[in-house]
Amino acid sequence: MNKLLIVGTVAFDAIETPFGKTDKILGGAGTYIGLSASFFKLQQAIVSVVGEDFPQEYIDLLTDRNIDVTGLEVVKGGKTFFWSGRYHNDLNSRDTLDTQLNVLADFKPVVPQHYKDADVVLLGNLHPMVQISVLDQMEKQPKLVVLDTMNFWMDCALPELLEVIKRVDVITINDEEARQLSGEYSLVKAAAKIRTMGPEYVVIKKGEHGALLFHDKEVFFAPALPLEEVFDPTGAGDTFAGGFAGYITQSENISFENMKNAIIYGSNMASFCVEKFGTERMVDLTKEEVLDRLEQFKALTQFDISLGDE
Amino acid sequence: MNKLLIVGTVAFDAIETPFGKTDKILGGAGTYIGLSASFFKLQQAIVSVVGEDFPQEYIDLLTDRNIDVTGLEVVKGGKTFFWSGRYHNDLNSRDTLDTQLNVLADFKPVVPQHYKDADVVLLGNLHPMVQISVLDQMEKQPKLVVLDTMNFWMDCALPELLEVIKRVDVITINDEEARQLSGEYSLVKAAAKIRTMGPEYVVIKKGEHGALLFHDKEVFFAPALPLEEVFDPTGAGDTFAGGFAGYITQSENISFENMKNAIIYGSNMASFCVEKFGTERMVDLTKEEVLDRLEQFKALTQFDISLGDE
Repeated sequence: MNKLLIVGTVAFDAIETPFGKTDKILGGAGTYIGLSASFFKLQQAIVSVVGEDFPQEYIDLLTDRNIDVTGLEVVKGGKTFFWSGRYHNDLNSRDTLDTQLNVLADFKPVVPQHYKDADVVLLGNLHPMVQISVLDQMEKQPKLVVLDTMNFWMDCALPELLEVIKRVDVITINDEEARQLSGEYSLVKAAAKIRTMGPEYVVIKKGEHGALLFHDKEVFFAPALPLEEVFDPTGAGDTFAGGFAGYITQSENISFENMKNAIIYGSNMASFCVEKFGTERMVDLTKEEVLDRLEQFKALTQFDISLGDE
Repeated sequence: MNKLLIVGTVAFDAIETPFGKTDKILGGAGTYIGLSASFFKLQQAIVSVVGEDFPQEYIDLLTDRNIDVTGLEVVKGGKTFFWSGRYHNDLNSRDTLDTQLNVLADFKPVVPQHYKDADVVLLGNLHPMVQISVLDQMEKQPKLVVLDTMNFWMDCALPELLEVIKRVDVITINDEEARQLSGEYSLVKAAAKIRTMGPEYVVIKKGEHGALLFHDKEVFFAPALPLEEVFDPTGAGDTFAGGFAGYITQSENISFENMKNAIIYGSNMASFCVEKFGTERMVDLTKEEVLDRLEQFKALTQFDISLGDE
């Protein structure tokens, strides 16, 4: 089985949506990515950091899914990264209520020796210097490096971000962030400009409006599944990235045609994530549900106009 | 060939976008619908009204495309409906600068005798009483009645609008209007509620984010083509409806599967409309370009995940 190496936060979240609020629950980009990727046939490891306050049951939840936590540092006496946010009524925007970096402030990622030859590396949303450090520790050039990032790093660490962008094959980024990074309003132009910064492939995430995959002159679109209710969007982008990278790792195929499947799988996984608070839905999700929903994605998007119809 | 009957405005527009502005040019929902439908094998007629100020060359432009204008009343001494608007920088919203109803104020639609047995009727955006009057004049139940409407009529003629909604098979409406009409934020719930008002099929137009087709428990999605530049969105929704109804009329098939093709064709036609000011692009468009773009829509949306990939 191929190896996927993930770097990303493992954290506590406290979330408020119009449907309710949670106390401190399991969260973090790395957590969502790992849970999502665990639905594919692969080996995976997560590089991250938590404090001594992080419950063993949460770590067990990761290892139960065959996520290697050798690279998950537990800082004695340290406190785990904590984020708290409140979503607006449309669930498309949110306010950050609190951010406590805690052990993340001094995080020095250590890639486990047996993952320095990983086939696919997914650099989850973190400081670009952490992402670069992970790449620097690889002993073999991965077949594919995927970067997820956000506007926060554009605002406060742009030179470092541009450095890591140069070194990745795929960037996943949301629409507003693509516009900010490129200075272009049109997403077609934004993707073209971002491709000149390094990545061969640009994935622009549009939330409830789906995701676009750009490469050369080609473009592919994966819709979000229309849902009766979006309960909590937290982690949807990370879950998308985990599904994307998980599928690529499993299939050993980095062609554009196969990446189409990968972003469909990313949308598929993300469509579950938003159905309950935090990681709850990803934890109770079954492989059968994922395959059923793949059929829904086909019904949603596949059509058959033959030339005879002309 | 099957018959499509259109009712909709034929008008003058003056448009401002970030890319420039026009004087009075050809516009109106009926015009865009007719031009779009003219790319399909069908007979079509338009029921509308203009003033004596309406240039013969604009009428010739319609008849050159085999659009029957027997039902296009020219009011002696009257002035043609005029709309003027200015788009904001994102092109997703606009301000109406001027609306002069003129001859539209007293419009009594007259369906030509030879179209009282039309196969498909498209009720373009107009006062619901005008739309009802057209339905009342039909001597044979059409195979399909498609209604396009907007929030303006929800605000000022809701009872009449609900009356016409009861009598149609398909409603096309934008996302905000679907929310307003149904009182539901989720588009899945909005579509379900609108279906209880009458239409078997609900098409929700999301502009640059594509269009959703709902029927029973089924849903299909047609993306908008990602474009380098949207020049002028005027008429895109009408052009979409014209492509949808044109394809259905040509294919004589009102199944859900065929409606998927129809909304892909709607998106296809609309993707051209926005490339130039007003009707300019629709007028110089060729059938070959439409077929080429259909291939682009396939490349954009079609994927192939076989179960073997699991």
